[in-house]
Amino acid sequence: MRDDLSIHFAVVGAGLAGSLLAVYLAGQGHRVDVYERRADPRVAPPDEGRSINLGLSARGIGALRKAGLWDAVRTHTVPMRGRYVHPREGRPFFHPYGRDPGEILHSIRRDALSRTLVEHAEKLQGVRFFFGTPVTAIDRDAPSFRAGGETVTPDVIVGADGAFSAVRAELLRGRPADFRQEFLPWGYKELHLPYTERLEALHVWPGDQGLMVAHPNVDGSLTCTLFMDHHDLARPDLAAFVKSVLPAADLPDLAGQLARNPVGHLVTVRTSKWHEDGRAVLIGDACHAVYPFYGQGMNSAFEDCVVLAECVEARPDDLGAAFAAYQRRRKPHTDVLADLSADNFLELRDRLRSPLHLARKQVDTVLSRLLPDMWRPLYTMVSHTTMPYGEALRRARKQDRIVRAGGMTAAVGLAAALLWRRDRRHPK
Amino acid sequence: MRDDLSIHFAVVGAGLAGSLLAVYLAGQGHRVDVYERRADPRVAPPDEGRSINLGLSARGIGALRKAGLWDAVRTHTVPMRGRYVHPREGRPFFHPYGRDPGEILHSIRRDALSRTLVEHAEKLQGVRFFFGTPVTAIDRDAPSFRAGGETVTPDVIVGADGAFSAVRAELLRGRPADFRQEFLPWGYKELHLPYTERLEALHVWPGDQGLMVAHPNVDGSLTCTLFMDHHDLARPDLAAFVKSVLPAADLPDLAGQLARNPVGHLVTVRTSKWHEDGRAVLIGDACHAVYPFYGQGMNSAFEDCVVLAECVEARPDDLGAAFAAYQRRRKPHTDVLADLSADNFLELRDRLRSPLHLARKQVDTVLSRLLPDMWRPLYTMVSHTTMPYGEALRRARKQDRIVRAGGMTAAVGLAAALLWRRDRRHPK
Ligand SMILES: Cc1cc2nc3c(=O)[nH]c(=O)nc-3n(C[C@H](O)[C@H](O)[C@H](O)COP(=O)(O)OP(=O)(O)OC[C@H]3O[C@@H](n4cnc5c(N)ncnc54)[C@H](O)[C@@H]3O)c2cc1C
Ligand SMILES: Cc1cc2nc3c(=O)[nH]c(=O)nc-3n(C[C@H](O)[C@H](O)[C@H](O)COP(=O)(O)OP(=O)(O)OC[C@H]3O[C@@H](n4cnc5c(N)ncnc54)[C@H](O)[C@@H]3O)c2cc1C
Repeated sequence: MRDDLSIHFAVVGAGLAGSLLAVYLAGQGHRVDVYERRADPRVAPPDEGRSINLGLSARGIGALRKAGLWDAVRTHTVPMRGRYVHPREGRPFFHPYGRDPGEILHSIRRDALSRTLVEHAEKLQGVRFFFGTPVTAIDRDAPSFRAGGETVTPDVIVGADGAFSAVRAELLRGRPADFRQEFLPWGYKELHLPYTERLEALHVWPGDQGLMVAHPNVDGSLTCTLFMDHHDLARPDLAAFVKSVLPAADLPDLAGQLARNPVGHLVTVRTSKWHEDGRAVLIGDACHAVYPFYGQGMNSAFEDCVVLAECVEARPDDLGAAFAAYQRRRKPHTDVLADLSADNFLELRDRLRSPLHLARKQVDTVLSRLLPDMWRPLYTMVSHTTMPYGEALRRARKQDRIVRAGGMTAAVGLAAALLWRRDRRHPK
Repeated sequence: MRDDLSIHFAVVGAGLAGSLLAVYLAGQGHRVDVYERRADPRVAPPDEGRSINLGLSARGIGALRKAGLWDAVRTHTVPMRGRYVHPREGRPFFHPYGRDPGEILHSIRRDALSRTLVEHAEKLQGVRFFFGTPVTAIDRDAPSFRAGGETVTPDVIVGADGAFSAVRAELLRGRPADFRQEFLPWGYKELHLPYTERLEALHVWPGDQGLMVAHPNVDGSLTCTLFMDHHDLARPDLAAFVKSVLPAADLPDLAGQLARNPVGHLVTVRTSKWHEDGRAVLIGDACHAVYPFYGQGMNSAFEDCVVLAECVEARPDDLGAAFAAYQRRRKPHTDVLADLSADNFLELRDRLRSPLHLARKQVDTVLSRLLPDMWRPLYTMVSHTTMPYGEALRRARKQDRIVRAGGMTAAVGLAAALLWRRDRRHPK
């Protein structure tokens, strides 16, 4: 036990959430040891086909800014001002994310972000990283675990160990807690497109048998993620199949890349148990992995860091109360995010191909221009504000009811159609 | 590996499903070793407050009869011809389970049933039971496990180890499989009522803050199960609270029984992974624990035994195919059962108090009398037939649509009201 209010936190996982949390906790004068199974991202070569580009949005940026990290991170990002949709038929078109120029996302490579976080955190007093050090034999009661041949006995274990969290499993063991993991029948493979016309957009190739998105990199290349049913990803004729369902995905060395790169799984995880008295607590994917189709997994994990740090700061003398408050503040919203993320899969897969659906989305855009203070599309509230997800959903539902009840749909639809034509231009 | 078609099955768990499955598999000439953590039910005294009485219905009885066990089991049962409802206000009334005298349930104590199954199974060639022998260190690949200080290497591991199955955990470990466990906010305590007026019925005391059911025993006593929110079950003034919300639950030594008996948890478990190639397979609560409010957990576990045995018999040379066929035949139906069981909680808790709801149920009863070959209430199909659960639900939905569409409700409601009066008599 500790005898002052400097707490010894052992963070399991130096992923995105674990590294940022270390910064926040060290800022409060606590001791933070971070244990990571993988090699140090500053020395290890990036895994081919495992880089995963991420879209930083308002929530993540806010958390980085608060930690004094946004300027350092920003140099590794490329802005994305909207979606550049490549329909199977017809010409590609650009669809801006929001009405304000500030309503944009920032594409960043996972390894670049991870390196920046670790570099910054390690400079802080009280922070130590142990790379290549898997954590095993976790005991929620002590609390303790084994790492690097030793038994570690911190005040608090933080499970920042991702969607398949071992800390979570230990918290759930034998407990009457609700738990759910759901895998999407679709998995993904990462592909690389060395150089392309530089567009500040997230590219989307929608399709019902395969869907591809691509994030721009600072070097002008694109990192593509091909999503497809696992059955199809296992086809012997995968390259030919990809070309047939997504003609635009005819990248250089497609067959070679498909053969080399591993298949990723997509999982939604919900658990009712986020903490164990004052001795263990979960953050990020460990307590709420979501499908990546709203681009909010990391962003929400960064929000966890802010809220958890606030709760610890408010009650360093009663961490049980602090962790309970943290879960109470976060879980209702990450539950909503899980649903929205599953919904957005359908949107990207099926609906982006439908001009009718896009026209309906424009209703939202039009209303937000007419009533800028009152009306905001759900996507805008999720991606370009830090309003809690649950609150965003509640407002969006209310707006939907108004549109339906007011019978404004037809009139606004017309206006949308006009704007629609105007917006089918390429971004600058 | 085996060199003939006699397979070595190691069953983890000599609960209800494991013991009955041993009978079926031994009947096909296989070798079956059953490992059970608890003591032999033939010598151990029954756990106080843990007996759990069960209602055997058509499905369970069918499976026992097919195994030649029904006559032996029957001597330990008391028939239940319907529900005897004790409303908070007004007189108790009897509500028969079905229109036919054969549409009844049979109440049995868990220990009596378990003993009968084990006694019978152990007489069969090839069957051995190991009691007081927990299974640990399960390896799905070998397959193997540790038990009684030894490493066991059977051809097949059967996980019949209940809702918190260790075999299931090993099948899921690191796998992209959907899994969900959900605990009801309500738990339960068992209570004993030494002697009462002998009624061949399931007693129900409905209520929205507590709900009690009671099964009759052969000795004339009742085993009661008190269901209540966990928060309430933890109250220091529990006995007084129980008396206030369920005045009828004023049993002898209520406070003592409440203090002594443990709280039980109620869980629904769903998993997409029921088997591992030809090396491991799950049955009963291990793959589909349900809330007990439809009284079908054991009954459906017994159906698993029949179907699994049929699949093994059809493909003893290809157990991978046999287990896949078994899951395909069973899972859609046990998924439906999970939903129905959760629904029936609401029915028992809230709706049984409402004469209106009961009158609507009578619509079903009336139609089933008018159209005996075509019309059967859902409850009847679930409890008094062996029609797969999914098929029962499909038919019930169709019937619902007919009632609604035909606008027959009013007319039939009238008829129901008449029958309702007639039925509010005690059973003989
Ligand atoms: C294809 C794809 C695209 C995505 N796109 C976006 C996006 O655009 N925007 C967005 O916000 N989110 C996105 N996400 C989600 C985002 O990647 C995750 O939400 C985020 O990585 C979660 O961070 P984390 O720190 O909780 O977990 P992780 O980043 O998974 O980190 C967990 C760390 O714990 C380590 N670890 C695990 N077990 C142990 C152990 N026993 N001992 C030691 N270390 C251990 C792991 O090695 C890992 O480094 C995407 C995800 C995918 C799959
Ligand atoms: C209050 C209540 C009322 C119910 N009423 C009814 C009813 O009226 N009708 C009905 O059909 N169903 C009812 N059920 C459900 C029924 O009890 C279960 O569905 C049934 O017991 C499932 O049988 P099983 O063999 O799969 O699991 P279990 O009966 O739970 O047996 C599992 C066995 O495995 C053993 N085991 C576990 N782990 C290990 C290990 N590692 N090594 C060795 N052994 C192990 C356990 O000790 C246990 O004996 C009720 C349940 C409850 C809780």
